[in-house]
Amino acid sequence: MRILSSRNAVYEFSSRNKPAYTAEPGETFVVETKDAFSGRVKTSRTLFEDLDMSDVNPATGPIEIEGLLPGEVLAVSIDRIECGEKGVLMCSPELGILSKDVRRSRTKIVRVRGGKVLLGDGLEIDLNPHVGVIGVSPANGSFPSYYPGDYGGNMDTVEACAGSTVYLPVFVRGAMLAMGDVHAAMGDGEVCGTGVEVPARVTATVSKAEGLDLKRPMIETRTSWLSYAAAETLDEAARLATGDLVRFISNMRGIDFEEAYMIASAAADLRISQVVDPLMAAKMVISKRYV
Amino acid sequence: MRILSSRNAVYEFSSRNKPAYTAEPGETFVVETKDAFSGRVKTSRTLFEDLDMSDVNPATGPIEIEGLLPGEVLAVSIDRIECGEKGVLMCSPELGILSKDVRRSRTKIVRVRGGKVLLGDGLEIDLNPHVGVIGVSPANGSFPSYYPGDYGGNMDTVEACAGSTVYLPVFVRGAMLAMGDVHAAMGDGEVCGTGVEVPARVTATVSKAEGLDLKRPMIETRTSWLSYAAAETLDEAARLATGDLVRFISNMRGIDFEEAYMIASAAADLRISQVVDPLMAAKMVISKRYV
Repeated sequence: MRILSSRNAVYEFSSRNKPAYTAEPGETFVVETKDAFSGRVKTSRTLFEDLDMSDVNPATGPIEIEGLLPGEVLAVSIDRIECGEKGVLMCSPELGILSKDVRRSRTKIVRVRGGKVLLGDGLEIDLNPHVGVIGVSPANGSFPSYYPGDYGGNMDTVEACAGSTVYLPVFVRGAMLAMGDVHAAMGDGEVCGTGVEVPARVTATVSKAEGLDLKRPMIETRTSWLSYAAAETLDEAARLATGDLVRFISNMRGIDFEEAYMIASAAADLRISQVVDPLMAAKMVISKRYV
Repeated sequence: MRILSSRNAVYEFSSRNKPAYTAEPGETFVVETKDAFSGRVKTSRTLFEDLDMSDVNPATGPIEIEGLLPGEVLAVSIDRIECGEKGVLMCSPELGILSKDVRRSRTKIVRVRGGKVLLGDGLEIDLNPHVGVIGVSPANGSFPSYYPGDYGGNMDTVEACAGSTVYLPVFVRGAMLAMGDVHAAMGDGEVCGTGVEVPARVTATVSKAEGLDLKRPMIETRTSWLSYAAAETLDEAARLATGDLVRFISNMRGIDFEEAYMIASAAADLRISQVVDPLMAAKMVISKRYV
Protein backbone atom coordinates (compact mmCIF):
# COMPACT_ATOMS: atom_id res chain seq x y z
CA MET A 1 0.00 0.00 0.00
CA ARG A 2 1.36 3.42 -0.90
CA ILE A 3 2.09 5.91 1.85
CA LEU A 4 1.45 9.52 0.87
CA SER A 5 3.81 11.69 2.88
CA SER A 6 2.68 14.82 4.67
CA ARG A 7 5.62 16.64 3.09
CA ASN A 8 3.23 17.43 0.25
CA ALA A 9 0.48 19.53 1.71
CA VAL A 10 -1.73 22.43 0.72
CA TYR A 11 -2.97 25.28 2.88
CA GLU A 12 -5.60 26.29 0.37
CA PHE A 13 -8.32 24.49 -1.51
CA SER A 14 -7.81 26.07 -4.92
CA SER A 15 -8.90 25.44 -8.48
CA ARG A 16 -5.23 25.99 -9.38
CA ASN A 17 -3.81 23.26 -7.12
CA LYS A 18 -1.56 20.80 -8.96
CA PRO A 19 -1.50 17.12 -7.97
CA ALA A 20 1.19 15.87 -5.59
CA TYR A 21 0.00 12.26 -5.96
CA THR A 22 -2.08 10.30 -8.42
CA ALA A 23 -4.34 7.41 -7.43
CA GLU A 24 -6.58 5.05 -9.34
CA PRO A 25 -10.25 4.55 -8.54
CA GLY A 26 -10.45 1.60 -6.14
CA GLU A 27 -6.99 2.26 -4.72
CA THR A 28 -6.37 2.12 -0.97
CA PHE A 29 -3.53 4.22 0.39
CA VAL A 30 -2.25 5.68 3.64
CA VAL A 31 -2.26 9.45 4.01
CA GLU A 32 0.11 10.87 6.58
CA THR A 33 -1.21 14.06 8.10
CA LYS A 34 0.47 16.72 10.22
CA ASP A 35 -1.48 18.19 13.10
CA ALA A 36 -3.49 21.37 12.56
CA PHE A 37 -0.50 23.50 13.56
CA SER A 38 1.95 21.85 11.16
CA GLY A 39 3.66 20.38 14.23
CA ARG A 40 4.88 23.81 15.36
CA VAL A 41 3.31 23.65 18.83
CA LYS A 42 5.85 21.72 20.89
CA THR A 43 4.95 23.01 24.37
CA SER A 44 2.15 24.85 26.15
CA ARG A 45 4.19 28.04 25.85
CA THR A 46 3.27 28.40 22.17
CA LEU A 47 -0.02 30.30 22.11
CA PHE A 48 -2.52 30.91 19.31
CA GLU A 49 -1.16 34.46 18.72
CA ASP A 50 2.28 32.96 18.07
CA LEU A 51 1.00 31.00 15.08
CA ASP A 52 1.20 32.05 11.47
CA MET A 53 -2.25 31.32 10.04
CA SER A 54 -0.59 30.22 6.81
CA ASP A 55 0.72 27.20 8.80
CA VAL A 56 -2.74 26.19 10.04
CA ASN A 57 -4.61 23.11 8.80
CA PRO A 58 -2.17 21.55 6.33
CA ALA A 59 -3.99 19.08 4.10
CA THR A 60 -1.89 16.31 2.60
CA GLY A 61 -2.23 16.18 -1.18
CA PRO A 62 -3.66 17.08 -3.56
CA ILE A 63 -4.33 13.54 -4.70
CA GLU A 64 -5.54 13.36 -8.28
CA ILE A 65 -8.02 10.50 -8.77
CA GLU A 66 -7.63 9.26 -12.33
CA GLY A 67 -10.67 9.59 -14.52
CA LEU A 68 -12.84 11.61 -12.11
CA LEU A 69 -14.60 14.41 -13.96
CA PRO A 70 -16.45 17.57 -12.94
CA GLY A 71 -20.10 16.78 -12.12
CA GLU A 72 -19.22 13.32 -10.81
CA VAL A 73 -18.95 12.39 -7.14
CA LEU A 74 -15.83 11.17 -5.34
CA ALA A 75 -16.28 8.57 -2.59
CA VAL A 76 -13.58 8.51 0.09
CA SER A 77 -13.95 5.53 2.39
CA ILE A 78 -12.08 6.08 5.62
CA ASP A 79 -10.81 2.66 6.57
CA ARG A 80 -8.63 3.46 9.56
CA ILE A 81 -7.32 6.43 11.54
CA GLU A 82 -4.19 6.04 13.68
CA CYS A 83 -3.69 9.05 15.93
CA GLY A 84 -0.41 10.38 17.25
CA GLU A 85 0.07 10.23 21.01
CA LYS A 86 0.46 13.96 21.60
CA GLY A 87 -2.60 16.17 21.25
CA VAL A 88 -2.90 19.95 21.32
CA LEU A 89 -5.86 22.10 22.44
CA MET A 90 -5.90 25.89 22.35
CA CYS A 91 -8.14 28.70 23.44
CA SER A 92 -7.70 32.38 22.72
CA PRO A 93 -9.63 35.69 22.76
CA GLU A 94 -9.34 35.46 18.96
CA LEU A 95 -10.89 32.01 18.66
CA GLY A 96 -14.15 30.18 19.15
CA ILE A 97 -17.80 30.92 19.88
CA LEU A 98 -17.03 32.42 23.33
CA SER A 99 -13.96 34.36 22.23
CA LYS A 100 -15.11 37.48 24.12
CA ASP A 101 -15.19 35.58 27.43
CA VAL A 102 -11.62 34.27 27.16
CA ARG A 103 -9.32 36.32 29.38
CA ARG A 104 -6.04 34.86 28.15
CA SER A 105 -4.81 32.42 25.58
CA ARG A 106 -3.91 28.96 26.71
CA THR A 107 -2.37 25.90 25.08
CA LYS A 108 -2.89 22.44 26.53
CA ILE A 109 -0.72 19.47 25.57
CA VAL A 110 -2.43 16.14 26.27
CA ARG A 111 -1.70 12.43 25.91
CA VAL A 112 -3.71 10.15 23.63
CA ARG A 113 -3.42 6.61 24.93
CA GLY A 114 -5.43 3.40 25.28
CA GLY A 115 -8.49 4.76 23.52
CA LYS A 116 -8.63 7.81 25.78
CA VAL A 117 -7.50 11.41 25.80
CA LEU A 118 -5.94 12.26 29.17
CA LEU A 119 -7.10 15.84 29.71
CA GLY A 120 -5.46 16.27 33.12
CA ASP A 121 -6.81 16.30 36.69
CA GLY A 122 -7.88 12.67 36.26
CA LEU A 123 -10.26 13.44 33.40
CA GLU A 124 -10.13 10.85 30.63
CA ILE A 125 -12.45 11.20 27.67
CA ASP A 126 -13.25 8.70 24.93
CA LEU A 127 -11.60 9.07 21.55
CA ASN A 128 -13.70 9.74 18.50
CA PRO A 129 -10.97 10.10 15.85
CA HIS A 130 -12.05 11.81 12.65
CA VAL A 131 -10.63 13.71 9.70
CA GLY A 132 -11.26 17.45 10.22
CA VAL A 133 -10.15 18.64 6.79
CA ILE A 134 -11.24 16.63 3.76
CA GLY A 135 -12.05 18.20 0.45
CA VAL A 136 -11.49 18.59 -3.26
CA SER A 137 -10.53 21.56 -5.42
CA PRO A 138 -13.38 24.04 -5.86
CA ALA A 139 -14.52 25.11 -9.34
CA ASN A 140 -13.14 28.62 -8.93
CA GLY A 141 -11.07 30.60 -6.52
CA SER A 142 -8.92 29.68 -3.58
CA PHE A 143 -9.93 29.19 0.05
CA PRO A 144 -7.71 28.81 3.12
CA SER A 145 -7.80 25.24 4.40
CA TYR A 146 -9.33 26.39 7.70
CA TYR A 147 -12.52 27.32 5.77
CA PRO A 148 -15.28 24.84 4.92
CA GLY A 149 -17.35 24.96 1.75
CA ASP A 150 -19.34 23.01 -0.82
CA TYR A 151 -16.02 21.35 -1.80
CA GLY A 152 -15.56 20.06 1.78
CA GLY A 153 -12.40 21.56 3.28
CA ASN A 154 -12.45 22.18 7.01
CA MET A 155 -15.60 20.12 7.56
CA ASP A 156 -14.84 19.38 11.24
CA THR A 157 -17.54 16.75 11.26
CA VAL A 158 -17.07 13.91 13.72
CA GLU A 159 -18.80 11.44 11.39
CA ALA A 160 -15.81 11.61 8.99
CA CYS A 161 -14.43 8.68 10.99
CA ALA A 162 -13.25 5.13 10.29
CA GLY A 163 -16.09 3.12 8.78
CA SER A 164 -17.59 6.16 7.06
CA THR A 165 -17.54 7.21 3.43
CA VAL A 166 -17.31 10.91 2.62
CA TYR A 167 -18.92 11.83 -0.71
CA LEU A 168 -17.62 15.00 -2.35
CA PRO A 169 -18.88 16.68 -5.53
CA VAL A 170 -16.10 16.87 -8.14
CA PHE A 171 -15.42 20.32 -9.63
CA VAL A 172 -12.10 19.82 -11.45
CA ARG A 173 -10.61 16.95 -13.45
CA GLY A 174 -9.08 14.41 -11.04
CA ALA A 175 -11.00 15.85 -8.05
CA MET A 176 -7.75 16.82 -6.24
CA LEU A 177 -8.46 15.34 -2.82
CA ALA A 178 -6.59 16.64 0.21
CA MET A 179 -7.01 15.76 3.88
CA GLY A 180 -5.58 16.60 7.28
CA ASP A 181 -6.49 18.16 10.65
CA VAL A 182 -7.26 14.86 12.36
CA HIS A 183 -8.80 15.16 15.82
CA ALA A 184 -8.40 12.39 18.39
CA ALA A 185 -11.54 13.83 20.01
CA MET A 186 -13.93 16.69 19.40
CA GLY A 187 -17.51 17.42 20.37
CA ASP A 188 -20.07 18.73 17.88
CA GLY A 189 -19.45 22.46 17.57
CA GLU A 190 -15.69 22.49 18.24
CA VAL A 191 -16.68 25.43 20.38
CA CYS A 192 -13.27 26.71 21.53
CA GLY A 193 -11.87 26.49 18.01
CA THR A 194 -9.80 23.32 18.33
CA GLY A 195 -10.40 19.65 18.93
CA VAL A 196 -7.66 17.43 20.30
CA GLU A 197 -5.31 18.13 17.38
CA VAL A 198 -3.02 15.24 16.44
CA PRO A 199 -0.82 14.07 13.59
CA ALA A 200 -2.20 10.86 12.10
CA ARG A 201 -2.12 8.14 9.48
CA VAL A 202 -5.38 7.80 7.60
CA THR A 203 -6.04 4.69 5.50
CA ALA A 204 -8.53 5.54 2.78
CA THR A 205 -10.00 4.05 -0.40
CA VAL A 206 -11.11 6.30 -3.23
CA SER A 207 -13.66 5.54 -5.90
CA LYS A 208 -16.23 7.12 -8.16
CA ALA A 209 -19.66 7.15 -6.50
CA GLU A 210 -22.66 6.07 -8.54
CA GLY A 211 -26.24 7.20 -8.09
CA LEU A 212 -25.58 10.31 -6.05
CA ASP A 213 -26.08 13.83 -7.38
CA LEU A 214 -24.50 16.28 -4.94
CA LYS A 215 -24.07 20.02 -4.61
CA ARG A 216 -22.39 19.62 -1.24
CA PRO A 217 -20.70 16.83 0.74
CA MET A 218 -22.63 13.91 2.23
CA ILE A 219 -21.36 11.27 4.64
CA GLU A 220 -22.47 7.66 4.94
CA THR A 221 -21.63 6.18 8.33
CA ARG A 222 -22.10 2.54 9.28
CA THR A 223 -25.65 3.31 10.40
CA SER A 224 -26.68 6.68 8.97
CA TRP A 225 -26.65 9.15 6.10
CA LEU A 226 -25.90 12.78 6.67
CA SER A 227 -26.05 15.99 4.69
CA TYR A 228 -23.65 18.84 5.35
CA ALA A 229 -23.63 22.56 4.59
CA ALA A 230 -21.46 25.53 5.53
CA ALA A 231 -22.68 29.13 5.40
CA GLU A 232 -22.20 32.57 6.96
CA THR A 233 -24.75 31.80 9.69
CA LEU A 234 -25.80 28.63 11.45
CA ASP A 235 -29.40 29.41 10.50
CA GLU A 236 -28.53 29.38 6.79
CA ALA A 237 -26.32 26.28 7.12
CA ALA A 238 -29.18 24.52 8.91
CA ARG A 239 -31.61 25.44 6.12
CA LEU A 240 -29.26 24.13 3.43
CA ALA A 241 -28.46 20.88 5.26
CA THR A 242 -32.17 20.26 5.87
CA GLY A 243 -33.04 20.88 2.22
CA ASP A 244 -30.34 18.48 1.05
CA LEU A 245 -31.44 15.70 3.41
CA VAL A 246 -35.14 16.12 2.64
CA ARG A 247 -34.41 15.85 -1.10
CA PHE A 248 -32.22 12.81 -0.42
CA ILE A 249 -35.05 11.10 1.53
CA SER A 250 -37.48 12.03 -1.25
CA ASN A 251 -35.21 10.44 -3.90
CA MET A 252 -34.35 7.35 -1.87
CA ARG A 253 -37.94 6.54 -0.91
CA GLY A 254 -39.56 7.79 -4.14
CA ILE A 255 -41.89 10.12 -2.25
CA ASP A 256 -42.72 13.79 -2.70
CA PHE A 257 -41.03 16.67 -0.95
CA GLU A 258 -43.79 17.28 1.61
CA GLU A 259 -43.88 13.64 2.69
CA ALA A 260 -40.07 13.52 2.99
CA TYR A 261 -40.10 16.78 4.96
CA MET A 262 -42.48 15.36 7.58
CA ILE A 263 -40.43 12.14 7.83
CA ALA A 264 -37.29 14.23 8.36
CA SER A 265 -39.02 16.24 11.08
CA ALA A 266 -40.09 13.08 12.90
CA ALA A 267 -37.02 10.92 12.39
CA ALA A 268 -33.88 12.88 11.37
CA ASP A 269 -31.60 15.01 13.54
CA LEU A 270 -30.52 18.49 12.49
CA ARG A 271 -27.18 19.03 14.19
CA ILE A 272 -24.12 21.24 14.27
CA SER A 273 -20.76 20.32 12.80
CA GLN A 274 -18.88 23.39 13.97
CA VAL A 275 -19.31 27.08 14.75
CA VAL A 276 -15.75 28.41 14.43
CA ASP A 277 -14.21 27.84 10.97
CA PRO A 278 -15.19 30.84 10.43
CA LEU A 279 -18.19 29.77 8.37
CA MET A 280 -20.75 27.79 10.37
CA ALA A 281 -21.59 24.20 9.43
CA ALA A 282 -24.73 22.17 10.04
CA LYS A 283 -25.52 18.54 9.27
CA MET A 284 -28.66 16.46 9.23
CA VAL A 285 -28.57 12.76 10.09
CA ILE A 286 -31.03 9.98 9.33
CA SER A 287 -30.79 6.29 10.17
CA LYS A 288 -30.30 4.01 7.14
CA ARG A 289 -33.30 2.06 8.45
CA TYR A 290 -35.53 4.96 7.38
CA VAL A 291 -34.35 5.59 3.80
CA MET B 1 -51.80 9.83 42.81
CA ARG B 2 -53.64 12.93 41.63
CA ILE B 3 -54.55 13.28 37.98
CA LEU B 4 -54.43 16.85 36.71
CA SER B 5 -56.97 17.15 33.93
CA SER B 6 -56.17 18.82 30.61
CA ARG B 7 -59.40 20.81 30.99
CA ASN B 8 -57.26 23.37 32.78
CA ALA B 9 -54.73 24.61 30.26
CA VAL B 10 -52.93 27.82 29.33
CA TYR B 11 -51.99 29.05 25.89
CA GLU B 12 -49.62 31.65 27.27
CA PHE B 13 -46.75 31.62 29.72
CA SER B 14 -47.61 34.76 31.64
CA SER B 15 -46.62 36.43 34.88
CA ARG B 16 -50.35 36.90 35.43
CA ASN B 17 -51.33 33.21 35.20
CA LYS B 18 -53.33 32.00 38.22
CA PRO B 19 -52.85 28.42 39.51
CA ALA B 20 -55.26 25.72 38.37
CA TYR B 21 -53.64 23.17 40.68
CA THR B 22 -51.41 23.26 43.74
CA ALA B 23 -48.76 20.62 44.48
CA GLU B 24 -46.32 20.09 47.33
CA PRO B 25 -42.60 19.70 46.81
CA GLY B 26 -41.92 15.96 46.51
CA GLU B 27 -45.37 15.24 45.11
CA THR B 28 -45.80 12.92 42.14
CA PHE B 29 -48.83 13.47 39.92
CA VAL B 30 -50.16 12.63 36.47
CA VAL B 31 -50.60 15.48 34.02
CA GLU B 32 -53.04 14.84 31.20
CA THR B 33 -52.08 16.76 28.08
CA LYS B 34 -53.99 17.48 24.89
CA ASP B 35 -52.14 17.27 21.62
CA ALA B 36 -50.57 20.43 20.16
CA PHE B 37 -53.77 21.20 18.24
CA SER B 38 -56.09 20.90 21.27
CA GLY B 39 -57.49 17.74 19.67
CA ARG B 40 -59.06 19.71 16.81
CA VAL B 41 -57.34 17.80 14.00
CA LYS B 42 -59.53 14.74 13.50
CA THR B 43 -58.68 13.91 9.88
CA SER B 44 -56.06 14.74 7.27
CA ARG B 45 -58.50 17.25 5.75
CA THR B 46 -57.78 19.76 8.53
CA LEU B 47 -54.76 21.76 7.37
CA PHE B 48 -52.49 24.18 9.22
CA GLU B 49 -54.32 27.21 7.73
CA ASP B 50 -57.56 25.92 9.25
CA LEU B 51 -56.15 26.21 12.78
CA ASP B 52 -56.64 29.10 15.14
CA MET B 53 -53.18 29.76 16.61
CA SER B 54 -54.81 30.50 19.95
CA ASP B 55 -55.64 26.76 20.08
CA VAL B 56 -52.04 25.68 19.50
CA ASN B 57 -49.84 24.13 22.21
CA PRO B 58 -52.16 23.96 25.22
CA ALA B 59 -50.13 23.46 28.40
CA THR B 60 -51.92 21.81 31.30
CA GLY B 61 -51.71 23.91 34.44
CA PRO B 62 -50.53 26.16 35.81
CA ILE B 63 -49.43 24.04 38.75
CA GLU B 64 -48.37 26.09 41.76
CA ILE B 65 -45.57 24.38 43.68
CA GLU B 66 -45.94 25.35 47.33
CA GLY B 67 -43.05 27.27 48.82
CA LEU B 68 -41.08 27.81 45.61
CA LEU B 69 -39.76 31.36 45.44
CA PRO B 70 -38.30 33.57 42.72
CA GLY B 71 -34.55 32.96 42.35
CA GLU B 72 -34.92 29.29 43.30
CA VAL B 73 -34.90 26.39 40.83
CA LEU B 74 -37.77 23.97 40.16
CA ALA B 75 -36.87 20.34 39.39
CA VAL B 76 -39.43 18.43 37.33
CA SER B 77 -38.58 14.72 37.15
CA ILE B 78 -40.37 13.09 34.24
CA ASP B 79 -41.16 9.61 35.47
CA ARG B 80 -43.30 8.27 32.66
CA ILE B 81 -44.89 9.39 29.37
CA GLU B 82 -47.87 7.44 27.98
CA CYS B 83 -48.65 8.54 24.43
CA GLY B 84 -52.02 8.43 22.72
CA GLU B 85 -52.33 6.10 19.73
CA LYS B 86 -53.15 8.74 17.14
CA GLY B 87 -50.42 11.12 16.05
CA VAL B 88 -50.62 14.19 13.81
CA LEU B 89 -47.92 15.68 11.56
CA MET B 90 -48.36 18.80 9.46
CA CYS B 91 -46.46 20.75 6.88
CA SER B 92 -47.39 24.09 5.39
CA PRO B 93 -45.90 26.98 3.39
CA GLU B 94 -46.31 28.94 6.64
CA LEU B 95 -44.36 26.52 8.80
CA GLY B 96 -40.87 25.17 9.31
CA ILE B 97 -37.32 25.82 8.14
CA LEU B 98 -38.13 24.97 4.49
CA SER B 99 -41.48 26.77 4.40
CA LYS B 100 -40.63 28.35 1.03
CA ASP B 101 -40.19 24.94 -0.60
CA VAL B 102 -43.58 23.56 0.49
CA ARG B 103 -46.04 23.69 -2.39
CA ARG B 104 -49.15 22.78 -0.45
CA SER B 105 -50.15 22.10 3.13
CA ARG B 106 -50.56 18.55 4.21
CA THR B 107 -51.76 16.79 7.36
CA LYS B 108 -50.75 13.24 8.13
CA ILE B 109 -52.54 11.10 10.71
CA VAL B 110 -50.37 8.22 11.95
CA ARG B 111 -50.65 5.32 14.39
CA VAL B 112 -48.46 5.04 17.48
CA ARG B 113 -48.24 1.39 18.45
CA GLY B 114 -45.81 -1.13 19.95
CA GLY B 115 -43.03 1.36 20.49
CA LYS B 116 -43.18 2.56 16.88
CA VAL B 117 -44.76 5.32 14.84
CA LEU B 118 -46.27 3.86 11.66
CA LEU B 119 -45.57 6.61 9.13
CA GLY B 120 -47.12 4.79 6.16
CA ASP B 121 -45.62 2.97 3.15
CA GLY B 122 -44.14 0.40 5.55
CA LEU B 123 -41.99 2.96 7.35
CA GLU B 124 -41.88 2.43 11.10
CA ILE B 125 -39.77 4.70 13.23
CA ASP B 126 -38.77 4.35 16.87
CA LEU B 127 -40.59 6.37 19.50
CA ASN B 128 -38.70 8.95 21.54
CA PRO B 129 -41.57 10.38 23.62
CA HIS B 130 -40.85 13.73 25.21
CA VAL B 131 -42.63 16.78 26.60
CA GLY B 132 -42.47 19.59 24.01
CA VAL B 133 -43.86 22.38 26.19
CA ILE B 134 -42.64 22.60 29.77
CA GLY B 135 -42.19 25.88 31.57
CA VAL B 136 -42.94 28.24 34.41
CA SER B 137 -44.37 31.75 34.52
CA PRO B 138 -41.89 34.38 33.35
CA ALA B 139 -41.05 37.37 35.56
CA ASN B 140 -42.84 39.80 33.27
CA GLY B 141 -45.04 39.77 30.24
CA SER B 142 -46.93 37.07 28.44
CA PHE B 143 -45.72 34.74 25.70
CA PRO B 144 -47.73 32.38 23.49
CA SER B 145 -47.14 28.78 24.47
CA TYR B 146 -45.62 28.02 21.06
CA TYR B 147 -42.66 30.29 21.97
CA PRO B 148 -39.64 29.12 23.99
CA GLY B 149 -37.74 31.31 26.43
CA ASP B 150 -35.63 31.44 29.57
CA TYR B 151 -38.74 30.23 31.45
CA GLY B 152 -38.88 27.08 29.26
CA GLY B 153 -42.14 27.03 27.31
CA ASN B 154 -42.01 25.40 23.90
CA MET B 155 -38.60 23.83 24.49
CA ASP B 156 -39.12 21.04 21.94
CA THR B 157 -36.10 19.24 23.32
CA VAL B 158 -36.09 15.47 22.94
CA GLU B 159 -34.15 15.02 26.19
CA ALA B 160 -37.25 16.14 28.18
CA CYS B 161 -38.16 12.45 28.27
CA ALA B 162 -38.89 9.82 30.90
CA GLY B 163 -35.89 9.42 33.19
CA SER B 164 -34.86 13.05 32.80
CA THR B 165 -35.19 15.98 35.18
CA VAL B 166 -35.93 19.40 33.74
CA TYR B 167 -34.59 22.27 35.88
CA LEU B 168 -36.35 25.60 35.47
CA PRO B 169 -35.47 28.94 37.07
CA VAL B 170 -38.35 30.23 39.19
CA PHE B 171 -39.53 33.78 38.47
CA VAL B 172 -42.83 33.99 40.40
CA ARG B 173 -44.01 32.60 43.74
CA GLY B 174 -45.12 28.97 43.25
CA ALA B 175 -43.27 28.70 39.90
CA MET B 176 -46.56 28.01 37.99
CA LEU B 177 -45.49 24.96 36.04
CA ALA B 178 -47.39 24.04 32.87
CA MET B 179 -46.73 21.28 30.35
CA GLY B 180 -48.10 19.85 27.13
CA ASP B 181 -47.27 19.30 23.45
CA VAL B 182 -46.00 15.75 23.90
CA HIS B 183 -44.35 14.21 20.82
CA ALA B 184 -44.31 10.46 20.33
CA ALA B 185 -41.32 11.09 18.05
CA MET B 186 -39.34 14.07 16.82
CA GLY B 187 -35.85 14.58 15.46
CA ASP B 188 -33.58 17.37 16.65
CA GLY B 189 -34.68 20.50 14.80
CA GLU B 190 -38.38 19.65 14.38
CA VAL B 191 -37.70 20.94 10.91
CA CYS B 192 -41.20 20.89 9.37
CA GLY B 193 -42.71 22.55 12.44
CA THR B 194 -44.33 19.52 14.08
CA GLY B 195 -43.23 16.28 15.64
CA VAL B 196 -45.61 13.35 15.91
CA GLU B 197 -48.15 15.28 18.00
CA VAL B 198 -50.09 13.19 20.51
CA PRO B 199 -52.24 13.57 23.60
CA ALA B 200 -50.52 11.99 26.59
CA ARG B 201 -50.37 11.28 30.30
CA VAL B 202 -47.15 12.49 31.91
CA THR B 203 -46.20 11.27 35.38
CA ALA B 204 -43.95 13.83 37.03
CA THR B 205 -42.44 14.63 40.42
CA VAL B 206 -41.73 18.21 41.41
CA SER B 207 -39.22 19.46 43.93
CA LYS B 208 -36.97 22.36 44.78
CA ALA B 209 -33.51 21.88 43.26
CA GLU B 210 -30.50 22.55 45.45
CA GLY B 211 -27.07 23.67 44.31
CA LEU B 212 -28.04 24.94 40.86
CA ASP B 213 -28.04 28.62 39.94
CA LEU B 214 -29.81 29.00 36.58
CA LYS B 215 -30.68 31.78 34.18
CA ARG B 216 -32.17 29.33 31.72
CA PRO B 217 -33.41 25.72 31.77
CA MET B 218 -31.07 22.76 32.12
CA ILE B 219 -31.87 19.07 31.72
CA GLU B 220 -30.30 16.12 33.49
CA THR B 221 -30.81 12.87 31.59
CA ARG B 222 -29.85 9.43 32.89
CA THR B 223 -26.37 9.88 31.39
CA SER B 224 -25.84 13.57 30.59
CA TRP B 225 -26.29 17.22 31.53
CA LEU B 226 -27.48 19.72 29.01
CA SER B 227 -27.83 23.47 28.80
CA TYR B 228 -30.56 25.09 26.70
CA ALA B 229 -31.07 28.54 25.21
CA ALA B 230 -33.58 30.13 22.83
CA ALA B 231 -32.84 33.27 20.82
CA GLU B 232 -33.68 35.11 17.60
CA THR B 233 -30.95 33.24 15.71
CA LEU B 234 -29.43 29.82 16.04
CA ASP B 235 -26.01 31.46 16.22
CA GLU B 236 -27.02 33.45 19.31
CA ALA B 237 -28.79 30.45 20.90
CA ALA B 238 -25.64 28.38 20.32
CA ARG B 239 -23.48 31.03 21.98
CA LEU B 240 -25.74 31.21 25.05
CA ALA B 241 -26.04 27.43 25.43
CA THR B 242 -22.26 27.04 25.12
CA GLY B 243 -21.64 29.76 27.73
CA ASP B 244 -24.04 28.12 30.17
CA LEU B 245 -22.50 24.66 29.78
CA VAL B 246 -18.91 25.92 30.02
CA ARG B 247 -19.76 27.75 33.27
CA PHE B 248 -21.51 24.60 34.54
CA ILE B 249 -18.41 22.49 33.81
CA SER B 250 -16.23 25.12 35.46
CA ASN B 251 -18.38 25.06 38.63
CA MET B 252 -18.78 21.29 38.77
CA ARG B 253 -15.07 20.56 38.30
CA GLY B 254 -13.75 23.61 40.17
CA ILE B 255 -11.66 24.73 37.20
CA ASP B 256 -11.31 28.05 35.43
CA PHE B 257 -13.30 29.18 32.41
CA GLU B 258 -10.55 28.57 29.85
CA GLU B 259 -9.95 25.00 31.03
CA ALA B 260 -13.69 24.26 31.03
CA TYR B 261 -14.00 25.77 27.54
CA MET B 262 -11.35 23.43 26.12
CA ILE B 263 -12.96 20.40 27.84
CA ALA B 264 -16.32 21.40 26.33
CA SER B 265 -14.75 21.68 22.88
CA ALA B 266 -13.21 18.22 23.15
CA ALA B 267 -16.00 16.37 24.93
CA ALA B 268 -19.39 18.14 24.78
CA ASP B 269 -21.84 18.33 21.88
CA LEU B 270 -23.39 21.61 20.79
CA ARG B 271 -26.71 20.65 19.22
CA ILE B 272 -30.03 22.00 18.01
CA SER B 273 -33.30 21.66 19.89
CA GLN B 274 -35.53 23.22 17.24
CA VAL B 275 -35.53 25.83 14.47
CA VAL B 276 -39.25 26.64 14.12
CA ASP B 277 -40.85 27.95 17.36
CA PRO B 278 -40.31 30.81 16.05
CA LEU B 279 -37.25 31.51 18.21
CA MET B 280 -34.37 29.10 17.61
CA ALA B 281 -33.11 26.85 20.39
CA ALA B 282 -29.71 25.24 20.92
CA LYS B 283 -28.50 22.87 23.59
CA MET B 284 -25.12 21.59 24.71
CA VAL B 285 -24.71 18.10 26.12
CA ILE B 286 -21.93 16.59 28.22
CA SER B 287 -21.67 13.10 29.66
CA LYS B 288 -21.99 12.91 33.45
CA ARG B 289 -18.73 10.97 33.38
CA TYR B 290 -16.93 14.22 32.50
CA VAL B 291 -18.32 16.61 35.12
